[in-house]
Amino acid sequence: MSASEITRSGVKTHLSNVVVSGGVAYLAGVTPATGTTVAEQTKSVLDQISGLLAGVGSDVSKLLSAQIWLTDIRNRDAMNEVWNAWVAPGAPPARACVEAKLAAPEWLVEIMVTAAV
Amino acid sequence: MSASEITRSGVKTHLSNVVVSGGVAYLAGVTPATGTTVAEQTKSVLDQISGLLAGVGSDVSKLLSAQIWLTDIRNRDAMNEVWNAWVAPGAPPARACVEAKLAAPEWLVEIMVTAAV
Amino acid sequence: MSASEITRSGVKTHLSNVVVSGGVAYLAGVTPATGTTVAEQTKSVLDQISGLLAGVGSDVSKLLSAQIWLTDIRNRDAMNEVWNAWVAPGAPPARACVEAKLAAPEWLVEIMVTAAV
Repeated sequence: MSASEITRSGVKTHLSNVVVSGGVAYLAGVTPATGTTVAEQTKSVLDQISGLLAGVGSDVSKLLSAQIWLTDIRNRDAMNEVWNAWVAPGAPPARACVEAKLAAPEWLVEIMVTAAV
Repeated sequence: MSASEITRSGVKTHLSNVVVSGGVAYLAGVTPATGTTVAEQTKSVLDQISGLLAGVGSDVSKLLSAQIWLTDIRNRDAMNEVWNAWVAPGAPPARACVEAKLAAPEWLVEIMVTAAV
Repeated sequence: MSASEITRSGVKTHLSNVVVSGGVAYLAGVTPATGTTVAEQTKSVLDQISGLLAGVGSDVSKLLSAQIWLTDIRNRDAMNEVWNAWVAPGAPPARACVEAKLAAPEWLVEIMVTAAV
């Protein structure tokens, strides 16, 4: 596979859930499928990310970078509890976490990652 | 070209419009040059991105990831209409879209992408 | 080193300060260690980034992309003054700068970069 070869999965009109190129998987910003609390919603997001990574032969231990958006930055500790239980010990990604309003009012968290494949 | 060789275009004091390295083009966050509505401004932004991609031998079908900032997330549908007409069918990038205040009060949208070269 | 080999430094529970893979260094979002003004805090952030880049054999002239979050976008000019004195002339990264609330109320700026290694 040449560096510029591109494969995609979960292709929708406006985005692909995963784009792989040059040994890197670029995931879309993942939003909660279930849950009302930030802990439940973070669990839902990370479960989806685990599935997307598995689908391209990667996993949580190969994360490179992550961006986390919270609609209320005061939810960071509650999100972190779920996050910390999910990342591979000794192998967390580079990460930033900031506050932002998201596309649906019921979403409290959105996470976008890259991973090595 | 070795993986760590870097080329740049549109070099200003504070940023380069495009940086290419290791087969990936990293574009700056592009803001509207014209337009007052979110549709017009999105069109302006995407036209500029098309030009920047062409300048490094890439194009919309090779997008890897995109971040979109809207000053009002309720403008997402209007932005998406223009976005969906622009992306290559079957080949949209991984994408996240969140709300954020931008550097100029008249800007309603800013978009930052990466693409394979 | 194969493209999917990953090295990390500054590994904490929730993030790594730097993850290197495929010739790219992914840095965590860096927040101020010192300073009360946006200029002082930007200096603190950029000093830390210089140190992190040096630690993986990279430097400011090899920056690929940068994201800057300001808690008040009106601080952009004050941040830019420090930023412009820091970047390598002729070699600034692709960059976006938007407003966002950050994890600690005293932080005015956070910066996340990638660089070639």
